[in-house]
Amino acid sequence: MIIVMQQNAQPKQVEDVVRRVEGLGYKVHLSRGEARTIIGIIGADEHLLQPTAFEAMDGVEKTMRVMQPFKVASRDFSQENTVIDVGGVKIGGPQIVVMAGPCSVESREMLLETAHAVKEAGATILRGGAFKPRSSPYSFQGLGEEGLRYLAEAREQTGLPVITEVMTPEDIEIVGDYADILQVGARNTQNYVLLRALGKQNKPVFLKRGMSSTIQELLMSAEYILSGGNMHVMVCERGIRTFEPLTRFTFDVNAIPVIKEMSHLPIVADPAHGTGKWSLVAPVAMAAVAAGADAIMVEVHPDPTVAWSDGAQSLTPARFAEMMKALAPVAQAVGRTL
Amino acid sequence: MIIVMQQNAQPKQVEDVVRRVEGLGYKVHLSRGEARTIIGIIGADEHLLQPTAFEAMDGVEKTMRVMQPFKVASRDFSQENTVIDVGGVKIGGPQIVVMAGPCSVESREMLLETAHAVKEAGATILRGGAFKPRSSPYSFQGLGEEGLRYLAEAREQTGLPVITEVMTPEDIEIVGDYADILQVGARNTQNYVLLRALGKQNKPVFLKRGMSSTIQELLMSAEYILSGGNMHVMVCERGIRTFEPLTRFTFDVNAIPVIKEMSHLPIVADPAHGTGKWSLVAPVAMAAVAAGADAIMVEVHPDPTVAWSDGAQSLTPARFAEMMKALAPVAQAVGRTL
Amino acid sequence: MIIVMQQNAQPKQVEDVVRRVEGLGYKVHLSRGEARTIIGIIGADEHLLQPTAFEAMDGVEKTMRVMQPFKVASRDFSQENTVIDVGGVKIGGPQIVVMAGPCSVESREMLLETAHAVKEAGATILRGGAFKPRSSPYSFQGLGEEGLRYLAEAREQTGLPVITEVMTPEDIEIVGDYADILQVGARNTQNYVLLRALGKQNKPVFLKRGMSSTIQELLMSAEYILSGGNMHVMVCERGIRTFEPLTRFTFDVNAIPVIKEMSHLPIVADPAHGTGKWSLVAPVAMAAVAAGADAIMVEVHPDPTVAWSDGAQSLTPARFAEMMKALAPVAQAVGRTL
Amino acid sequence: MIIVMQQNAQPKQVEDVVRRVEGLGYKVHLSRGEARTIIGIIGADEHLLQPTAFEAMDGVEKTMRVMQPFKVASRDFSQENTVIDVGGVKIGGPQIVVMAGPCSVESREMLLETAHAVKEAGATILRGGAFKPRSSPYSFQGLGEEGLRYLAEAREQTGLPVITEVMTPEDIEIVGDYADILQVGARNTQNYVLLRALGKQNKPVFLKRGMSSTIQELLMSAEYILSGGNMHVMVCERGIRTFEPLTRFTFDVNAIPVIKEMSHLPIVADPAHGTGKWSLVAPVAMAAVAAGADAIMVEVHPDPTVAWSDGAQSLTPARFAEMMKALAPVAQAVGRTL
Repeated sequence: MIIVMQQNAQPKQVEDVVRRVEGLGYKVHLSRGEARTIIGIIGADEHLLQPTAFEAMDGVEKTMRVMQPFKVASRDFSQENTVIDVGGVKIGGPQIVVMAGPCSVESREMLLETAHAVKEAGATILRGGAFKPRSSPYSFQGLGEEGLRYLAEAREQTGLPVITEVMTPEDIEIVGDYADILQVGARNTQNYVLLRALGKQNKPVFLKRGMSSTIQELLMSAEYILSGGNMHVMVCERGIRTFEPLTRFTFDVNAIPVIKEMSHLPIVADPAHGTGKWSLVAPVAMAAVAAGADAIMVEVHPDPTVAWSDGAQSLTPARFAEMMKALAPVAQAVGRTL
Repeated sequence: MIIVMQQNAQPKQVEDVVRRVEGLGYKVHLSRGEARTIIGIIGADEHLLQPTAFEAMDGVEKTMRVMQPFKVASRDFSQENTVIDVGGVKIGGPQIVVMAGPCSVESREMLLETAHAVKEAGATILRGGAFKPRSSPYSFQGLGEEGLRYLAEAREQTGLPVITEVMTPEDIEIVGDYADILQVGARNTQNYVLLRALGKQNKPVFLKRGMSSTIQELLMSAEYILSGGNMHVMVCERGIRTFEPLTRFTFDVNAIPVIKEMSHLPIVADPAHGTGKWSLVAPVAMAAVAAGADAIMVEVHPDPTVAWSDGAQSLTPARFAEMMKALAPVAQAVGRTL
Repeated sequence: MIIVMQQNAQPKQVEDVVRRVEGLGYKVHLSRGEARTIIGIIGADEHLLQPTAFEAMDGVEKTMRVMQPFKVASRDFSQENTVIDVGGVKIGGPQIVVMAGPCSVESREMLLETAHAVKEAGATILRGGAFKPRSSPYSFQGLGEEGLRYLAEAREQTGLPVITEVMTPEDIEIVGDYADILQVGARNTQNYVLLRALGKQNKPVFLKRGMSSTIQELLMSAEYILSGGNMHVMVCERGIRTFEPLTRFTFDVNAIPVIKEMSHLPIVADPAHGTGKWSLVAPVAMAAVAAGADAIMVEVHPDPTVAWSDGAQSLTPARFAEMMKALAPVAQAVGRTL
Repeated sequence: MIIVMQQNAQPKQVEDVVRRVEGLGYKVHLSRGEARTIIGIIGADEHLLQPTAFEAMDGVEKTMRVMQPFKVASRDFSQENTVIDVGGVKIGGPQIVVMAGPCSVESREMLLETAHAVKEAGATILRGGAFKPRSSPYSFQGLGEEGLRYLAEAREQTGLPVITEVMTPEDIEIVGDYADILQVGARNTQNYVLLRALGKQNKPVFLKRGMSSTIQELLMSAEYILSGGNMHVMVCERGIRTFEPLTRFTFDVNAIPVIKEMSHLPIVADPAHGTGKWSLVAPVAMAAVAAGADAIMVEVHPDPTVAWSDGAQSLTPARFAEMMKALAPVAQAVGRTL
């Protein structure tokens, strides 16, 4: 970490900062410039330091981290890409994994119908929400365990591994009994109680970026799970909140190569939430694969106009099949398969 | 709700939308313009409708809500301002309530010292975190129940009611045993499991706006608690995430009069998180009161440079006392007391 | 346009709005709901109306446009994609056009060297700034007309048409004497004096999206040029300002399919400004082509470390050649050529 | 400036950076940590350096400025606040200056009526647009010189100095013939050609923050004018673009104390553009004064419902008079007069 002192900082103030740093067991490297003094803090455990504490000291102008505040999630920790094996489906390897299914599990029939349709069109993992975080208390909140049972049945019929959302630590056990991947939604990216609990599991975790999480915060949240001992974490770009009103969110395609540079974790792209409109899902999915995403998650509904949630961004099975056809040559163009 | 059809929408597509709306029990009002057909949906329960489902229908261009998607939180529900009485301290009345104390309860001594100092300077409620949501798994996570006990002791000594954060439904009971107000942090604004559980309590709830929540989403989250039966909800503006890098967040001062127009709930301003820097806390607190805030929450620490969290934005007791002196004439200028 | 009256709007207030609308020569369609009255305004010239004027009337809650506020730029105006022919290079056709060259023209030698290098690697248009908008008054501001002469010489040697920036109406003539495409930079997207002057030209105009322009505002700015009579306009997505600090801007990949739906104008992607870092340029360029961009603009410098501007996001000629190799199969995957 | 090398940077790469820095005439201070090497650049002219050029060098991870990139605009340049005298009205002194008048000058009658009304209610400067930047080419673009003549007549009748917008360098002379303060609008904050031309004038300049300009960029734009020799610059906070849709912009109240810390220039607040809605103007104006603004600019129209621009955010003369009454005690509360 680097601490920049104010232009008129007193020698005593510089000394106080140095003493504090040394008291924490770090070595100090001092640069006295014409205009300002700069204090470098040297040590491998920089991620344990808190810049803001130093900013409260008299005479300090600002601080800058030199190293990332996360460790296990970083590229420095592992040069090799993490590959997560979910019942034989490998996320982070040469194959682009496609997770598809309805936003919410609405009934046994609709789920089974959708599961067979997406399987036929080439999906490799089945998605479906049983516990649903909804912005309105008056909206459908999910079928709960009943939905989980239908997901398990759909897996049995199609062979597709299942991913579904977990909203609270108490649900981990029951969701884990049915699902192959535990999904953390965008509103829970910084639900640290939930993340810590997931760190003690051995199940793969799918961690969505919050709608206003920075990339660094997303990787810090991954660090919560990883540092707890669960190394099976994939992160998901699903659009961030910006001023642009024509799309529900702005899909941050930059985040894909940035995360690939900074971390070894697999990256999933969610073009449905990242755009909010079904007609934009295929082009943005293709963009994500071209930029280096390892997997795609989309919402498919037999009839989006009667969907209980996220209808506007759901594909029909026919449109999903079309998207898969368009996606295959793009995957090939970047040296991967679908 | 209003549904705008595409320019080239087929009569059959218009009929399908009309039939769907009527099937849900709403009346339809049709406007056929030169360029487009517009479908108005008439009914008091508009907040139960989901615009996105209609956007998935063929021929639909866009939808617009006419009424707010929340009901109990709205100004239409109550023209009179809600006043919450916490042990005699009235939030939402003529007095500006000041909540002050350390970010984290670090020890019995520091808490008691701070509590007495803020009481003396005029604070009316004591704040302090026992369960702390931290972005790094390597940071101090709070003293837990031990911290709650110190808060209760500080209340006994000073007479100040106590507010502290609750992070998960399981903690509600224990936190509720000690605290007078249950705080929901910015990372839990859309933790619906937690909000639903708080709706079944009778304790006052302090709901922070998420760093990227819209005002409407904040009031929807309040609606979760209110619709569960707990009418003692205050909302808090604490800064939103923007592109400006010089401050940690951008305090959205507009939100104060906007919420006053839209809702009857009391509004608290948090200029510490809303700026991230102690030297900006007093001017922004004064701005918030001038704009109509009912209460102010600030962080005070005997020595911010050794604070275990949020040091850069914490006031010393002396600076807090100065802020209180500056705040008093501003409160008076808007016809209130401090 | 639709005008939603407040819940408690008086009949007189509704009448006043109706009279105002009819006075402007539009027909009115009135919907009286249980809760609110809604006034629909019917007429083909909706883009001439100003919603905000009605919002100032007593009893009005909000307004919503039904049609886009632009006309010539819209898809309704032309179902067929506009193709702009620049000396035989067709922008908006099946071939992905690549515009490459240095950020600033620094000297005759460096420009000619770069021009030959990008030509060899497959670029079809040469870019280079002679008049430079710089955020610091102490930075290099461009060679001016001298730079334009070097660009013309480079065109003569390589056969590549030339694009360069024009910052003010007075420069149009001189820049137009040398350049084949006139570029409007992101800080001038809403410089209406400049846009109007360009509307009177016959030269192709390359219009960058402002760093905080909405897509609608970008198309409104295009409308300024188009409505003046100059139909040769291409728009450029170059990243928008968001809260994410790891990249200089957030490339809005959604904007590409959105603009394709809303407008017939060709779309260029600028992954250099859209990311701010050379290592991200190739993956984001590939993403843009996969999403449907018609052209790519990138910065190439023989030695980016000595570049007088934008060094961090400039490619070396070798890296540019690599990017072109990676881009070709992606273009093919979406049915286009490079 | 500080340059942080990558963890695996080669000694040769460090040497290259050092040689480059020394070649530019700066001294280097090297810190070799366990993990990384850090290069400090020492010298008073840091604002002449470009961080991005170094980021393009092999082995460099990131750079950080130590000093601000502006000089004349900075608090280091002048501890004393700049006070601008406009015909006896002092901006930046103990009196809160109020600039009021219509968005656009629509006719002689309406301007004179408004001028007398705002004068009577206590305004000290008259505003009114003659050259109008409008997002639609189909909207009213201002009366031009005719409008300027009416402004001059209104000044003669009321004694109020006049502020009006200048959109392009060619207009400076004519606008300067009539106006007392030249206003640069939010869409021209980074129109460097215009800024440079204004730097050669002796007239006071009112510089609006762009809707997505950072505070640093705003002060860099002020530096363009100041470094040209014109020291009469005031800056204006007018709301920034954020994700919040209920207000047109988000008034950044933090910016007021931040700019006061960083710069000696007077600060004006524009709560009309900063909110977009007349009912929010008074509370946000009061907030701005409480936070330390030196002046307020608001839009007043005899009948906002027929305003040719910005009707929704314009005050009637009666509402303006009410705002002035509410503002006076707030000004007093912060030790100033109105």
